[in-house]
Amino acid sequence: MSKDLVFHATAISASARAQVKGQKPAVIWLTGLSGAGKSTIANALEQALVAKARHTFLLDGDNLRMGLCKDLGFTDADRVENIRRVAEVSKLLIDAGLIVITAFISPFHRDRAMAREVIGNDAFVEVFIDTSLEECERRDPKGLYGKARAGQIKNFTGIDSAYEAPTDPHIRINTVTEELSESIARVLEYLDKRFGQ
Amino acid sequence: MSKDLVFHATAISASARAQVKGQKPAVIWLTGLSGAGKSTIANALEQALVAKARHTFLLDGDNLRMGLCKDLGFTDADRVENIRRVAEVSKLLIDAGLIVITAFISPFHRDRAMAREVIGNDAFVEVFIDTSLEECERRDPKGLYGKARAGQIKNFTGIDSAYEAPTDPHIRINTVTEELSESIARVLEYLDKRFGQ
Repeated sequence: MSKDLVFHATAISASARAQVKGQKPAVIWLTGLSGAGKSTIANALEQALVAKARHTFLLDGDNLRMGLCKDLGFTDADRVENIRRVAEVSKLLIDAGLIVITAFISPFHRDRAMAREVIGNDAFVEVFIDTSLEECERRDPKGLYGKARAGQIKNFTGIDSAYEAPTDPHIRINTVTEELSESIARVLEYLDKRFGQ
Repeated sequence: MSKDLVFHATAISASARAQVKGQKPAVIWLTGLSGAGKSTIANALEQALVAKARHTFLLDGDNLRMGLCKDLGFTDADRVENIRRVAEVSKLLIDAGLIVITAFISPFHRDRAMAREVIGNDAFVEVFIDTSLEECERRDPKGLYGKARAGQIKNFTGIDSAYEAPTDPHIRINTVTEELSESIARVLEYLDKRFGQ
């Protein structure tokens, strides 16, 4: 490198980072009950995007609860703070030019509205995994509904804590009547139309 | 998309993300006093890496203090938590395959050791911006040393709070005797040797 190389004072911008990648950054925010199928859809969607050479990142309980959010419990205040951090990290990741998929129950209108505000309307895609409580409880993949019904888990969404369903999500997915591949195809089609990718 | 397309249960791994990008993810952790030149070096380094088609991200007070860490003040406990979150977000960013540059005073051995542990030895590069207190105070780009000497800012690193200099950093930069372009060239050379990039 030449000694007289001049560095510009301006930092690398989000749009510059994204441009290099040839993609529009976005946050695909999945919301739905425990057992609704968020993780399954998140993983399948990430694989489909990577297959299209998109640069993605998945935020879920697995990579946040033991790390960034390990100081948080399950009180109301801690749940709000958890979603706030998910939103703020998503914002950093779209600043880095990535397509982010988040998979959290995020049961309250207020918190999803906060996330939308932090992330920005232009990049926010709300996907409601609209699986009924009855179906989620029937699946009960982690045995959590059983424990919640037995009173062993408190403040469990759908049992003794509310799930406020999105009234106007960008995409609504029914995991009972629609094949996974069809759901993923619909999300990809939506992203293509909205972001040209 | 075909209806019978099969999704693998395995998630996209960090190494897969990085491989797509053709780079080894790493965290270049800059440490040094206020006014040492961390931001200047961080920005120049990011520009140099982007010029080499690397996919980078810069974490600094500008994008964390108003966002993810806006609930934190400047008490000892809050400073520790601030560095913990920087480390955890850096970990997520390297999981996304990026080369991360962090620019925080990070004055304590203990906190830098924690960051190294969270991030992992293999990806952690400690760069000590070794500018003397006298020189930083002479520059005083934000007028903070003046205020700290006047007692208007408490717990200011170098004045009434310690800066524990790294004893064995991977790279040591002297911003007085070395040109910026030379410092950047040395960092690039180090990354090239260690990570082959």
